[in-house]
Amino acid sequence: MQGAINLALKNLDPSCDGVTGAGRTDSGVHATGQVAHLDLKKAWEPDQLQKALNFHLKPKLISVVSSAKVNNNFHSRFLAIRRHYLFKIISRSSPLTLDKHRYWHIHHPLDVTKMKQAANYLTGKHDFTTFRSTLCQAKSPIKTLDKIEIIKVDSPSGPSINLKFEAKSFLHNQIRSIIGTLEKVGSGSWAPERVEYALISKDRTECGPVAPPSGLYLTQVDYKNNVFKS
Amino acid sequence: MQGAINLALKNLDPSCDGVTGAGRTDSGVHATGQVAHLDLKKAWEPDQLQKALNFHLKPKLISVVSSAKVNNNFHSRFLAIRRHYLFKIISRSSPLTLDKHRYWHIHHPLDVTKMKQAANYLTGKHDFTTFRSTLCQAKSPIKTLDKIEIIKVDSPSGPSINLKFEAKSFLHNQIRSIIGTLEKVGSGSWAPERVEYALISKDRTECGPVAPPSGLYLTQVDYKNNVFKS
Repeated sequence: MQGAINLALKNLDPSCDGVTGAGRTDSGVHATGQVAHLDLKKAWEPDQLQKALNFHLKPKLISVVSSAKVNNNFHSRFLAIRRHYLFKIISRSSPLTLDKHRYWHIHHPLDVTKMKQAANYLTGKHDFTTFRSTLCQAKSPIKTLDKIEIIKVDSPSGPSINLKFEAKSFLHNQIRSIIGTLEKVGSGSWAPERVEYALISKDRTECGPVAPPSGLYLTQVDYKNNVFKS
Repeated sequence: MQGAINLALKNLDPSCDGVTGAGRTDSGVHATGQVAHLDLKKAWEPDQLQKALNFHLKPKLISVVSSAKVNNNFHSRFLAIRRHYLFKIISRSSPLTLDKHRYWHIHHPLDVTKMKQAANYLTGKHDFTTFRSTLCQAKSPIKTLDKIEIIKVDSPSGPSINLKFEAKSFLHNQIRSIIGTLEKVGSGSWAPERVEYALISKDRTECGPVAPPSGLYLTQVDYKNNVFKS
């Protein structure tokens, strides 16, 4: 996504160093609320820049939905105080159509009550070594996970579950590692308590399988001052 | 859709005459609740037939989500007592990404109150000549439109409007013709009263432009007895 936007930018200001996003999204992960900043030589009106960027981004499925002028010390990544992610799981036996690649599609039902019980072990400040990619470049595995909310949804496509995550920042693959683990609990393969053990063990091999990217959405990034306030 | 299902069926029972759907959906229209019936030589278990059909339908984005044995006099089209359609409009200036082809995408806001006022003229039993395709093959232009419900929705992609339609049956392009007309009212180009005039005139040229198929979904078909009751 970043690469495509930077290519589009080259049409508008060849000297531009490109955008800096608030959070990485692996290939296949969706972002409905990504925030990025950039520096330009010319004083563009944000609306005009947004339209010009969207024009040059066609036919790619990338869209600038909001834009604002910020002061020079703004940094989309370093000044973010909270990131919101959503993970969507759908349980149905038949293939997805309209919602293909919009969910993690599983074929069995999930026990939400047990998943909530297991999720409770993971909120708060912990060493998340178990739930972090071996490729993760963060200096410390200690993070504070402020919230995991698990909501049953009756979508037109079938019974589904929305899992909402909030934290100042996340480790690489942290959410997908947690989701793959909670799914083990929801499907009945693991007892909820095994998740507490996995966390405490600080052992990557105790993690469930990493969930696929198709269900994950970066939905919102918060700053001390709302950048896009109208 | 029908053609693709019939091709898949040929793999399972070459003598099968194919499926008969409850309602036509023009190219680009979605169906999350289409119902179809078919006759087979062999006494398939519905679950097995569904799985086999879905296997042969890959990689097409068509999915059999439910299946049931019915008695010989069942007819998906003639015995339907009510059809439910949903039309989704989204108002935003930037291009759609995840929701591309899932909405009618317009770039201006809509006045829902005025659209509701205009829709009131259209519910009930009327001659819908104004709102029917010149290609429509129904014998009579008189239909009873039981319900138009207009709901504002705050989707993650932006402000959108869901319009729900219910009737025993619809004329060809009736909903898309009504939507295109209601949009004229919502955008402020037409006064709500003009829709009453358009209806009474029984003149196709008084209709607004036909809305694109991408926003339209056949969501449910009702029968006297619930065919898929578990």
